[in-house]
Amino acid sequence: MDFGFSQKSLDLQERLKAFMNKYVYPNEKIHHEQIKASGNPHHHAEIVDVLKEKAKEEGLWNLFLPDTNYGAGLTNLEYAPMAEIMGRVIWASEVFNCSAPDTGNMEILTQFGTEEQKETWLKPLLEGKIRSAFSMTEPDIASSDATNIQMYIRRDGDEYVVNGRKWFISGAARERCKLLITMGKTDPLNPEKHHQQSMVIIPVNTPGVTIKRAIPVFGNVGNEGHCEIIYEDARVPITNILGEEGGGFAIAQARLGPGRIHHCMRSIGAAQRALEMMCQRATRRVAFGKALAEQGVVQDWIAQSRVEIEMTRLLTLKAAWMMDTVGKKAAQDEIAMIKIIAPELHTTVLNRAIQLFGAAGVSDDFPLAEQWVYGRTLHLADGPDEVHKRSLARSCLRQWGNIK
Amino acid sequence: MDFGFSQKSLDLQERLKAFMNKYVYPNEKIHHEQIKASGNPHHHAEIVDVLKEKAKEEGLWNLFLPDTNYGAGLTNLEYAPMAEIMGRVIWASEVFNCSAPDTGNMEILTQFGTEEQKETWLKPLLEGKIRSAFSMTEPDIASSDATNIQMYIRRDGDEYVVNGRKWFISGAARERCKLLITMGKTDPLNPEKHHQQSMVIIPVNTPGVTIKRAIPVFGNVGNEGHCEIIYEDARVPITNILGEEGGGFAIAQARLGPGRIHHCMRSIGAAQRALEMMCQRATRRVAFGKALAEQGVVQDWIAQSRVEIEMTRLLTLKAAWMMDTVGKKAAQDEIAMIKIIAPELHTTVLNRAIQLFGAAGVSDDFPLAEQWVYGRTLHLADGPDEVHKRSLARSCLRQWGNIK
Amino acid sequence: MDFGFSQKSLDLQERLKAFMNKYVYPNEKIHHEQIKASGNPHHHAEIVDVLKEKAKEEGLWNLFLPDTNYGAGLTNLEYAPMAEIMGRVIWASEVFNCSAPDTGNMEILTQFGTEEQKETWLKPLLEGKIRSAFSMTEPDIASSDATNIQMYIRRDGDEYVVNGRKWFISGAARERCKLLITMGKTDPLNPEKHHQQSMVIIPVNTPGVTIKRAIPVFGNVGNEGHCEIIYEDARVPITNILGEEGGGFAIAQARLGPGRIHHCMRSIGAAQRALEMMCQRATRRVAFGKALAEQGVVQDWIAQSRVEIEMTRLLTLKAAWMMDTVGKKAAQDEIAMIKIIAPELHTTVLNRAIQLFGAAGVSDDFPLAEQWVYGRTLHLADGPDEVHKRSLARSCLRQWGNIK
Amino acid sequence: MDFGFSQKSLDLQERLKAFMNKYVYPNEKIHHEQIKASGNPHHHAEIVDVLKEKAKEEGLWNLFLPDTNYGAGLTNLEYAPMAEIMGRVIWASEVFNCSAPDTGNMEILTQFGTEEQKETWLKPLLEGKIRSAFSMTEPDIASSDATNIQMYIRRDGDEYVVNGRKWFISGAARERCKLLITMGKTDPLNPEKHHQQSMVIIPVNTPGVTIKRAIPVFGNVGNEGHCEIIYEDARVPITNILGEEGGGFAIAQARLGPGRIHHCMRSIGAAQRALEMMCQRATRRVAFGKALAEQGVVQDWIAQSRVEIEMTRLLTLKAAWMMDTVGKKAAQDEIAMIKIIAPELHTTVLNRAIQLFGAAGVSDDFPLAEQWVYGRTLHLADGPDEVHKRSLARSCLRQWGNIK
Repeated sequence: MDFGFSQKSLDLQERLKAFMNKYVYPNEKIHHEQIKASGNPHHHAEIVDVLKEKAKEEGLWNLFLPDTNYGAGLTNLEYAPMAEIMGRVIWASEVFNCSAPDTGNMEILTQFGTEEQKETWLKPLLEGKIRSAFSMTEPDIASSDATNIQMYIRRDGDEYVVNGRKWFISGAARERCKLLITMGKTDPLNPEKHHQQSMVIIPVNTPGVTIKRAIPVFGNVGNEGHCEIIYEDARVPITNILGEEGGGFAIAQARLGPGRIHHCMRSIGAAQRALEMMCQRATRRVAFGKALAEQGVVQDWIAQSRVEIEMTRLLTLKAAWMMDTVGKKAAQDEIAMIKIIAPELHTTVLNRAIQLFGAAGVSDDFPLAEQWVYGRTLHLADGPDEVHKRSLARSCLRQWGNIK
Repeated sequence: MDFGFSQKSLDLQERLKAFMNKYVYPNEKIHHEQIKASGNPHHHAEIVDVLKEKAKEEGLWNLFLPDTNYGAGLTNLEYAPMAEIMGRVIWASEVFNCSAPDTGNMEILTQFGTEEQKETWLKPLLEGKIRSAFSMTEPDIASSDATNIQMYIRRDGDEYVVNGRKWFISGAARERCKLLITMGKTDPLNPEKHHQQSMVIIPVNTPGVTIKRAIPVFGNVGNEGHCEIIYEDARVPITNILGEEGGGFAIAQARLGPGRIHHCMRSIGAAQRALEMMCQRATRRVAFGKALAEQGVVQDWIAQSRVEIEMTRLLTLKAAWMMDTVGKKAAQDEIAMIKIIAPELHTTVLNRAIQLFGAAGVSDDFPLAEQWVYGRTLHLADGPDEVHKRSLARSCLRQWGNIK
Repeated sequence: MDFGFSQKSLDLQERLKAFMNKYVYPNEKIHHEQIKASGNPHHHAEIVDVLKEKAKEEGLWNLFLPDTNYGAGLTNLEYAPMAEIMGRVIWASEVFNCSAPDTGNMEILTQFGTEEQKETWLKPLLEGKIRSAFSMTEPDIASSDATNIQMYIRRDGDEYVVNGRKWFISGAARERCKLLITMGKTDPLNPEKHHQQSMVIIPVNTPGVTIKRAIPVFGNVGNEGHCEIIYEDARVPITNILGEEGGGFAIAQARLGPGRIHHCMRSIGAAQRALEMMCQRATRRVAFGKALAEQGVVQDWIAQSRVEIEMTRLLTLKAAWMMDTVGKKAAQDEIAMIKIIAPELHTTVLNRAIQLFGAAGVSDDFPLAEQWVYGRTLHLADGPDEVHKRSLARSCLRQWGNIK
Repeated sequence: MDFGFSQKSLDLQERLKAFMNKYVYPNEKIHHEQIKASGNPHHHAEIVDVLKEKAKEEGLWNLFLPDTNYGAGLTNLEYAPMAEIMGRVIWASEVFNCSAPDTGNMEILTQFGTEEQKETWLKPLLEGKIRSAFSMTEPDIASSDATNIQMYIRRDGDEYVVNGRKWFISGAARERCKLLITMGKTDPLNPEKHHQQSMVIIPVNTPGVTIKRAIPVFGNVGNEGHCEIIYEDARVPITNILGEEGGGFAIAQARLGPGRIHHCMRSIGAAQRALEMMCQRATRRVAFGKALAEQGVVQDWIAQSRVEIEMTRLLTLKAAWMMDTVGKKAAQDEIAMIKIIAPELHTTVLNRAIQLFGAAGVSDDFPLAEQWVYGRTLHLADGPDEVHKRSLARSCLRQWGNIK
């Protein structure tokens, strides 16, 4: 169990921190204002393109991709601290072409894509020229169990005909989003429930595809947009299948692990930054005749936050290390564990920070409010906490007896 | 300790519930859409005016005002269940002319206003023709202690000249907001710290008054608008003072108690509705092969919520009953108690409901998301939880020894 | 909803408080020492007899019993504050002949006993001369559902022959315990599951009855003794049946409600005293250069405790008032609610008090340690919290849909 | 950050586990019964001596001692998993001569003792022939700050004369306890507050030393005995000083770090075993028609416990690793963190296990009750949680501003 970072990772961390200090933090306000000024919540802030060029120049690009041909070739453990650093600013990952859902999509394109698919979709994604969405969740079923998915992908000669409704498809409202990697059933009657599904690449502008709306989440449609999408007889050539027919479930599984590490590490980054902001504010702000830093309840919040952050970080590093050394399957309990605890950390620490900041904490003058609300969605994204607790408990229990 | 409701209150409760069923719940979507369609977040939804007329016709109007000449003449205990019922829909209070901050402003105008002030401001407020704001909180100080207020209200002949900066002044962004009841210091050097402050009525369109912005709260400026306001040499005649010079602090105190009862009862209403929505959803939704209602964790949430709601309701009724029978001062511990616990109830129960609803819970398709975020602000509004806990603890401790 | 206490109750409360101040608190140490000195954990401390005589003289006797012929004739609401006051000292109830399980046993003897049973058992119980136990819980089944009970009570001519094993039968180790009100199945094959059970009165010295051991609970067998009892062909005349054959379940139900009010009010008394002790200690003890009372975390504990106690008290009074006015059945949700929340209050507040007292808090020099451990058992006594939450949730849910 | 265990540690872990399985678990009941049968709560159970011989034979002896001459020479990281395994049974550490307070005492004797002291005291301690106590905490002061200590150690010619009162001196009631390593002030007026204290070795049988009582903790004096000790003109030769005069504070500090690692790892072992017992019971026990393992709330407890245990374990390993690599001082934040979180883990997981076991859980038939109560004392032992949170918070805050 060695969580020590390689020299390569340590170097990249230093360069990434320097980049954040020099380019990202100073531009948080501008990012916010550019979107606001545009009048379009899904507007691509101009500053992001400026920063992307700089990040590319500095080699801080595609760090998430373990593949050495297409990406930085870092292990999960090596990349984890990078995700933490990026997570300190809610939009920073994109600057380094490391933002969801593109990261997961690039991974599966790398692993399962044909040469043509790679040329058409992976290449511009790796270059940061286009964006993508992952179209899986459906409104009418409990999507946390992917076998429930109902969308029908019917083969018709050389084409697939896609019908169904998806929602909370993040990123689909972005101007640059060009493709929807879409999961549906090509073989709904297959007795093997895990071989009914397939994934196909559907260009956003395919006739029959309607992005109905970006669903407001806590009152905001968000920059990326969590979209409801209607597919009515949308047709794509059969060459648009990703991997094999019937292989959709397996690809979805393959996509999961690293994405969870990234999400959790970003949550840790968000919490860590909130802790630092709490400390800074507490030493400068006076109430009832003494600095907030001198007040017992504030000290309690700070101490608890520090402990919880450090524990969650270690657990996430362990999960990453296990994925690297024994593989995703053997690491599935650890992955469930971080999926359970990281959203809790995210909302708990941010909530304390907001309380310490008072009215300023709920305002948009600081990034706390946005991060807290975002954290709340993570208790549900990729399945509600309770589903992961159930899986983990059953895995524990199975060592002691039969579980139905 | 008799929390039984008078027949008058019981009758009004029934009529209010019937009104909510008939007119308010069916119009929640429309309200939302009218604001959205207007493109102005502070837009006054047309449906509200329609409903206000109906409420006025049915005598469900100004129920909050204990004064028998100007209002319904209900005690705090009689009105409390009305506030709970209204609180089930975030914007419903206005329909009955019972919404903050107008309620508190009408109360102090009734108690402290001159005949002229009543004619000019109270009358149209009572008729629901105009709206108002209460301008007290300042960005640079801990406003939970009102003696800290820095705004300077200088007398200059027959006028007051007002300078200073306020923020989180709720309601000031509304189209119909016509007056700002503003607290500042007329006598900042008075050794009696509680006699330095005065309240003056400042028309919104007074030269020198600039509503700089509605501060986004969790990413939304909100329909009412929590405004930052700049006062630069704003002049009003000295007849605009409310009560006496030096009497501002006392009026602020007088304003507090009933407002807290109202807020807390509305939180209870929000929580109660969330509980009912949870029960309803749980009986209809299936996951992992059985109804949510059959799942232990869901049952735990429902049972806990029921207990917490009932306890908070009883405590709030007790505080109301004490205000009615022994007065605000003797009830101050109980008022502190409900101020501590009601926001906690609000966020806790809503949070559970969101989790049960899944992605739908964070969306704007249900009122849960908005209510939860609103509840979060109540942990800070009128002073952070910690300030009220401190007061309550010191009150307990003082019975046993000296407290600095 | 009128929780006001009658003048009768108010007078008794004053007299009870005076009695506690004069006789009970000053004898806490002596009580402890008399038991310790005897070398027998189940020893009946002599001081208790002295105080019982005084209490009887002062008319503070059998206050719990609503029956006007046999007891004080107080309603549940009138008696509730008495139970709170007694609950401040863990052994005080006995001084007033108001301690479990005798109270419940006297109630059912009053309601269901024959004249002969009353003469033989109820009379000496009412006089405080003997004690009793209620023998229901069994080790091998989930006793929280009384229909699971397995003990077999076979009729054989004019006798019942009782066989089975019970455990956690509180009070059976006491020297003065003379009778076991015992529940078993007289008709185990009756298709009506709630008519299989009967209750019989079994003298402790009946041949075939073996009190095997007092089960140590958190390392202590306790003064009352939570006993494991073996019944092997124990024979009693059929006149020892309480009520009718097949009526055992109904009697068990009848016994429940008031007992829960008593238990919960005693928990509130324990918590209230702990809060007062916290306040007292905090004003006198210094750490890190200032009184504990000045420390934010301590203030937080005190404020939280005050709120939680007050809310639980109001809810319990409401449950008592409902039992008095609409009956046990209509009050069953409220009874479930207090059963859920009072043990939580008990352990939470006591836990805070222990922490504030430091090493002294875990010692037997103060009553906090004993009360906390006792409170822990209340999360399980009369069914674990989870069972009551389940019942309450299902009752809520049933209003919205069918629950299996 | 490499938490991988050396082969040496891994081998020892396997052997230790095998020993526990073969000798310790099967003897838990006997241990309990031997003490009970003796009638003396401080009785040394005979089985322990039997097992000590076996452990010595198998080389599972003095594993805690990093010194290679006197002990096993393991690093903190290497030893940590051993402490976890031993912690699964509350009395197991002694079997391997690894139990507090002897471990800390042996460490400081190794580091600071003279040859003569080592011969007289260290040798028989290492051989497991005698036991010892650490006499520091005093009843009248907040002992969590060691500079507050008041005991006076006056030099009189070739002797020290010791006067004062100590309490909660664990282990002093044991029959085999022969020495008290006692801290007091030799130079109370020294302006250097950290040079006022010295440590002296005081044989238990020294005239003037009275072990007044073993303080009952949660109703039990415990096997080791948490004693109150009176020192009245107790005289020892000056050669009994440990280290230098004025060096007591430094030795106390040196003693702290490893002890905390041991304590925390034992808590983790206790929690881990409770989790395993929960899983086992849940798969075998039925309530309301299905196995406990199938019930959502039980699954929630199991999942939460698993996550919390794993996180606390990783944090403790990190603290151990830091002590080994960068030293105690640099690791002090991490040591504070585990001191904050491990007692919380201990009580939380044990509390869940008790609830799952029901009445059996509070009884002494399972080790849960004793472990939970023991865990409660750990929130206070070596300073209450709040003191450690304060230190940790201040350490965080100091990076951002001045803290008084």
